[in-house]
Amino acid sequence: MSSNIPCRFKNKKSVLIKKRTIIEYAGNRSNRIYYVVKGLLRSYHLDDKGKIHTFMFAPEDWIVGDVESIAMGNQNSLYIDCLEDSEVIVSQEFQQDNNITILEEKNKKLLRRVGTLQQRVIMLMSYTARERYEFFLKTYPTLPNRVSQKMIASYLGITPEALSKIRREMVFAS
Amino acid sequence: MSSNIPCRFKNKKSVLIKKRTIIEYAGNRSNRIYYVVKGLLRSYHLDDKGKIHTFMFAPEDWIVGDVESIAMGNQNSLYIDCLEDSEVIVSQEFQQDNNITILEEKNKKLLRRVGTLQQRVIMLMSYTARERYEFFLKTYPTLPNRVSQKMIASYLGITPEALSKIRREMVFAS
Repeated sequence: MSSNIPCRFKNKKSVLIKKRTIIEYAGNRSNRIYYVVKGLLRSYHLDDKGKIHTFMFAPEDWIVGDVESIAMGNQNSLYIDCLEDSEVIVSQEFQQDNNITILEEKNKKLLRRVGTLQQRVIMLMSYTARERYEFFLKTYPTLPNRVSQKMIASYLGITPEALSKIRREMVFAS
Repeated sequence: MSSNIPCRFKNKKSVLIKKRTIIEYAGNRSNRIYYVVKGLLRSYHLDDKGKIHTFMFAPEDWIVGDVESIAMGNQNSLYIDCLEDSEVIVSQEFQQDNNITILEEKNKKLLRRVGTLQQRVIMLMSYTARERYEFFLKTYPTLPNRVSQKMIASYLGITPEALSKIRREMVFAS
């Protein structure tokens, strides 16, 4: 098991989840968060027209949860599912057994998550399609061949056709 | 002074900053964060074409900083300026004098910020113009008459004309 595993997930048993299993549903309430030991999780928003908007991917060593629900007590706005057979460790946010080491670690991780989301918002507001794809490659270097073009496009807020064009251009330019 | 003031800003002197002053520049490095006692700050991204994209507003009791820079050691990608004459308290992120109370408080605030940014990303990906404006009203109930239509539109990622249309419709519907 990875040595990066955060304190609050240590000494907990991991569980195996099959590809395509949905583990969190929008509309429910949950303060569960998932640390990915192996495999790949995804969180997404389903709009009124049934269109999927990928909120984030969570490959190895990432943590995923519906933080809006956790922090604000709202219903989940995200679904979470498994894109590959996965091994995950489940924890509860807002557990009471906080000590200074766990708090410092949480703080650091939350600060990084805010930083990543800041980049993501700027990306969605102002980046060209190509800059968006470069952002994806930087954020998820292990994923380009593990997730479909359609899913990447959905994460970037562009069409699969635009993504396909950029990928071709990048192959020719390299 | 507000009783909500977070621990790490307590016992620090506030400073007065004039309207239109730019207090942080993209390209610099800074781990400063600002707690707004009175007034209104804004952070924004300036794209290659010189277009302003409002990242967030910070009215009374909000904290604003360039968290990408703080968490990742990157250069600032945001500018921060004052939209009104403001009274703020400046602190440094990553200061060493952490104790459990400060850490717990930071944690709670960071978690809420992640929740808000999650909503913001979902908004930018999937909301209609009207839903975006409703999101703005919920997030910033005191701001509709304090910031220009252009700035609100820039925060929502829609055109000022689309915003104007929605506002008219909402007046007629009420």
